[in-house]
Amino acid sequence: MTELFTNELKDKILSHKRGSIGIAQINPIAGDIEYNAKKVLKYINLAQNIGLDLVVFPELTLMGYPIEDTIDRYPIIVEDNIKWLKEIAKITTKTCAIIGFVEPREDINVGKKYYNSLAVIQNGAIKSIVRKSLLPTYCEFNDYRYFEPSPVVGCQSANTLCNFDESKIENHPKTIIINGIKYGISICEDCWNNKEFFNSNVLYSKDPVEELSKENPDVFINCSASPTRAKKEQLKHNMLSFISKKYKTPFVYVNQVGAIDNSSFDGSSRVFNKEGKLLARAKSFEEQFLIVNPIKNIGEIYPLTNGPEKTLAEVKEYTLEYEPDLERTYKTIVQGIKDYFKKTGFKKAVIGLSGGLDSSVCAVILADALGKDNVFGISMPSEITSLESKNDAIDLAKNLGINFLETPVKDVVDCIDNSLKGIFKKVESKWDNRYKISSTADNIQARSRAIFLWGISNEFSKTLPIATSDKSELYMGYATINGDMSGGFAPIADVTKTKLFSLAKWLNKNRPQKNAIPLNIIHKKPTAELAINPKTGKTLIAEDALMPYEFLDEIIWRIENKKEHYYDMLNSEFLYEKHKKIPKELKIEWLDKFYGKMSNALYKWSILPPSVIVDSHSINKYDYKQPITSSHINYKGISKKKISKKIKEFLLCQK
Amino acid sequence: MTELFTNELKDKILSHKRGSIGIAQINPIAGDIEYNAKKVLKYINLAQNIGLDLVVFPELTLMGYPIEDTIDRYPIIVEDNIKWLKEIAKITTKTCAIIGFVEPREDINVGKKYYNSLAVIQNGAIKSIVRKSLLPTYCEFNDYRYFEPSPVVGCQSANTLCNFDESKIENHPKTIIINGIKYGISICEDCWNNKEFFNSNVLYSKDPVEELSKENPDVFINCSASPTRAKKEQLKHNMLSFISKKYKTPFVYVNQVGAIDNSSFDGSSRVFNKEGKLLARAKSFEEQFLIVNPIKNIGEIYPLTNGPEKTLAEVKEYTLEYEPDLERTYKTIVQGIKDYFKKTGFKKAVIGLSGGLDSSVCAVILADALGKDNVFGISMPSEITSLESKNDAIDLAKNLGINFLETPVKDVVDCIDNSLKGIFKKVESKWDNRYKISSTADNIQARSRAIFLWGISNEFSKTLPIATSDKSELYMGYATINGDMSGGFAPIADVTKTKLFSLAKWLNKNRPQKNAIPLNIIHKKPTAELAINPKTGKTLIAEDALMPYEFLDEIIWRIENKKEHYYDMLNSEFLYEKHKKIPKELKIEWLDKFYGKMSNALYKWSILPPSVIVDSHSINKYDYKQPITSSHINYKGISKKKISKKIKEFLLCQK
Repeated sequence: MTELFTNELKDKILSHKRGSIGIAQINPIAGDIEYNAKKVLKYINLAQNIGLDLVVFPELTLMGYPIEDTIDRYPIIVEDNIKWLKEIAKITTKTCAIIGFVEPREDINVGKKYYNSLAVIQNGAIKSIVRKSLLPTYCEFNDYRYFEPSPVVGCQSANTLCNFDESKIENHPKTIIINGIKYGISICEDCWNNKEFFNSNVLYSKDPVEELSKENPDVFINCSASPTRAKKEQLKHNMLSFISKKYKTPFVYVNQVGAIDNSSFDGSSRVFNKEGKLLARAKSFEEQFLIVNPIKNIGEIYPLTNGPEKTLAEVKEYTLEYEPDLERTYKTIVQGIKDYFKKTGFKKAVIGLSGGLDSSVCAVILADALGKDNVFGISMPSEITSLESKNDAIDLAKNLGINFLETPVKDVVDCIDNSLKGIFKKVESKWDNRYKISSTADNIQARSRAIFLWGISNEFSKTLPIATSDKSELYMGYATINGDMSGGFAPIADVTKTKLFSLAKWLNKNRPQKNAIPLNIIHKKPTAELAINPKTGKTLIAEDALMPYEFLDEIIWRIENKKEHYYDMLNSEFLYEKHKKIPKELKIEWLDKFYGKMSNALYKWSILPPSVIVDSHSINKYDYKQPITSSHINYKGISKKKISKKIKEFLLCQK
Repeated sequence: MTELFTNELKDKILSHKRGSIGIAQINPIAGDIEYNAKKVLKYINLAQNIGLDLVVFPELTLMGYPIEDTIDRYPIIVEDNIKWLKEIAKITTKTCAIIGFVEPREDINVGKKYYNSLAVIQNGAIKSIVRKSLLPTYCEFNDYRYFEPSPVVGCQSANTLCNFDESKIENHPKTIIINGIKYGISICEDCWNNKEFFNSNVLYSKDPVEELSKENPDVFINCSASPTRAKKEQLKHNMLSFISKKYKTPFVYVNQVGAIDNSSFDGSSRVFNKEGKLLARAKSFEEQFLIVNPIKNIGEIYPLTNGPEKTLAEVKEYTLEYEPDLERTYKTIVQGIKDYFKKTGFKKAVIGLSGGLDSSVCAVILADALGKDNVFGISMPSEITSLESKNDAIDLAKNLGINFLETPVKDVVDCIDNSLKGIFKKVESKWDNRYKISSTADNIQARSRAIFLWGISNEFSKTLPIATSDKSELYMGYATINGDMSGGFAPIADVTKTKLFSLAKWLNKNRPQKNAIPLNIIHKKPTAELAINPKTGKTLIAEDALMPYEFLDEIIWRIENKKEHYYDMLNSEFLYEKHKKIPKELKIEWLDKFYGKMSNALYKWSILPPSVIVDSHSINKYDYKQPITSSHINYKGISKKKISKKIKEFLLCQK
């Protein structure tokens, strides 16, 4: 077994009789109880061998988080997670373990079927059960959908296992003493409701940590499964520090690591001492076993991705300074790809290389996530593709050392064009709604390429094609259905274009292999290279079809982060305007274009492949939900006076 | 204005001074406040002109239900719905109106930002506010995600509007008196928690209707947005009848009609008298204004789709007797298509006609939903397509009178095949994971067809291509990505194959135009006609690739309805086995195949186009949520003994 910590640290921790804790930051597979249980066994065994007091695991350890409706359709896996829990308890010695599991509410009629619970196990038996009280339903969270909130916080006796409700609340200490140390244990969201820290803006009326504090625990423990998002790191750091300081009690926070579908969990489990100072922190984006003694102030701090100080302080204004968040962005996506492939049994990826920014950044990240030999870059030039683009794609593949081939898409495009010409003529003889200018030809190119990529995926085992759409373009619906937005996974669907430029530069600077992305790719203007601009006779530049990316990305930022509406934006200055004056009519044109295109993009968002959530807000369907048919939203709002006038007019017509 | 009721009924109702109610069963557009407000104005105006006491609207009238995260991203539409509410209140006379709206919780820090509320408006002002207490999160429901549950049931004073929390609970009557009649008002889920009716199996501890009953109202009113699903009709009927009888109080239930994305609301608003007898019921799947006097026992009962008695009593065993549910199924899908197209601004559909069951049933329903002139059937035979299939497609189109063209897909398929041959050779020079037998050729045909359909959609305005996958095949992942499972809408994604056969026969018998679907289509064995069976040298029959549909559909039924697991199914007799003995090994093979294919289909479910939910359970991603990476579920379960053995072995290896 790899040495996970220095012997020096181990000796230092063991020199104290009490309070030693192992933090098992594991990467589970949702619903694969045996796989997760073996991770638990491994680290319990390790903790016992070291002689620790306690080993703690993330939320829903045995089941993996999130598990969603899987437990409703397969009750057998819940039965199994209880069986495994009971058998694991039997092998425990005096080293205590805290394990998350799904707890059925047997013989109880009122409420949901399950609790989100922790078992405290020691000396061959279950000692106590802790249940989650606060159940989040925002963003990607859905706890209240399948769990009943616990009516009490902290520990209840072991004989309430699978059979606990309000009628069984005992006058039981909420805290638990393990080898002479008193612990106050909670689950994830239960520690996110401190009224003082959040200036009274909280989602729930009760505060489980506050309730636990009344019994004066020596240490708080919180078992979490909290995915990474932009700006969350600093918030979490400040909040946990605040809590430990406020209650003068060390805080042990153990977080799940690894990705489950669209959510990438960063781990970064940590311990604050009773002064609110960071005492220990596990690595980010890696499974790790960390040992600490929070009472004796002994621990080891692994660096965060790029350090918490530099990242993610609350930004009030839009900025192009993405640098502080780029390492986290990169690692979030790498882990997202790695775990999606591993957990679904895939190994290899095929990606269309256009010589443009999106596919280039995707290719770099894929090579890092899957290994360069497992990536095949396919350049599929059409008649519009420039020689420059072709060469950029070749250079990129060479630099990365990934597999590469070039194959023209012309024959297939021509053949489809030809067939469609005949079809359109026949359709036109019946229907009079043919567009004067259509995007058909553009889309045929994108779809022909996707047919090649999916063909390779169908022909070679364990191989997935990659969707290369970025967030800015998805907002605008500037992505082809069954074309570039189609694939087994969409790595950069939550990264805006301006951030992608920064990321490309960051990758060139910070990967062991420098400048893998040819500078030309970073410096040229993005184009889908699907159409010729009739005005210029040259390839249509994406910004001409849409609007400047800097402006577009600021609209997205303002809508997502500040919930601004049309006139908020029209009447305030954009960063873009600081260095380039634009007439008001043009700003109006861009804003109208944005809202129009976005409402038509809702369908595309709904069929987007799995994609890792990176940003503080996203359009990922598991994070942001809007009916497709709600496309008539009056985003400009309406005045009271105008409403009154409309009502009068309407009633007149009714007469 | 169309006469919505007989003068006789109107006179009868108006002959009594008190208790007359108009039920405005409207079809809203989510987020389009002005559109919805005008519907409200129309029916308030009508109610005033008639001289009714009261007019009631469905849940979230002004916003439409569901609205999901739209209100979080666009707070301006919530502001607007309040402005509209206040202006509408001003035009009210002595006819009182009850309108649903999203109520912001201004100046309140703890909890969600909004209530799901009703306003009682009369004589130019808001009289009272009612807020929803029970917030569903199961199936397609997500209320708790964005609404705060009300701490009290029934009416609170008008001055609590937008500014109500627990600290402001008044000693206010929960009921309200309108023209001398006392009403107890609740919202949707608030009436679904009767402990007695559900044998104590309820989701919430409190029962709002029970609380309202304590003030002895003369009439209960419930404003709902409750989508149709198999088996729900009878349950709802029985429940509402039970409640009105139990409390000896008439019950007025007003339901939203129309489809919003995947949810099709059936309307069928209704009134039970104090004996629990059905007194009035609005039409299903139509906007309607119904007038009743529940106290004086006056109302009109429009028939349900096929009558409540015949439909949907709880079925304990799997059966092929789909007949009682077919009219509802048909109307649910017709409305789903109609409203999806209308609300997103589309008018026409293109559909590939294979001469098979799926596309034929889709074509019939499309013709009925959009009008035959708005449907274009495209026959795209390949080399494998039989003459029989081609003729069946032609006959179907002729019978329906839809537009039709036949265009071979061979050229495009050959061209893609040819390109891919070269590509595969190059890939193979680097990768050794080429399948010996692949589905590549099958998929190319399906994808080429989809390219044609999407091409037409891109070239002709307001035109959507249709995805024809059915539920049985989606369960098995027997659908091509970017092929037959791709489209703007998937009409039959929640209808199993055996039910589709019944539906086809039902359509032939019950539509004004008889036998539109050629009998041959119903009688032949389903085949994708994408491959030749190497064993027979003939077209591969779907059941040979999968398993008999009757058996497959029973597995689906048992998993969805009874949450059965592997051994439950292996050890009990299937309907299929009653008329055909099968060896146990074959049953094992089919069950294993089912679980294996289903776990690989999770990705496909996640990218399925919008599709109307029909069945009591579905795989629609807004209804059933399972992580794609949870594909390693041990569906067979594991014994305590085996776990113990595995733990021992694992720990031995760790030494």
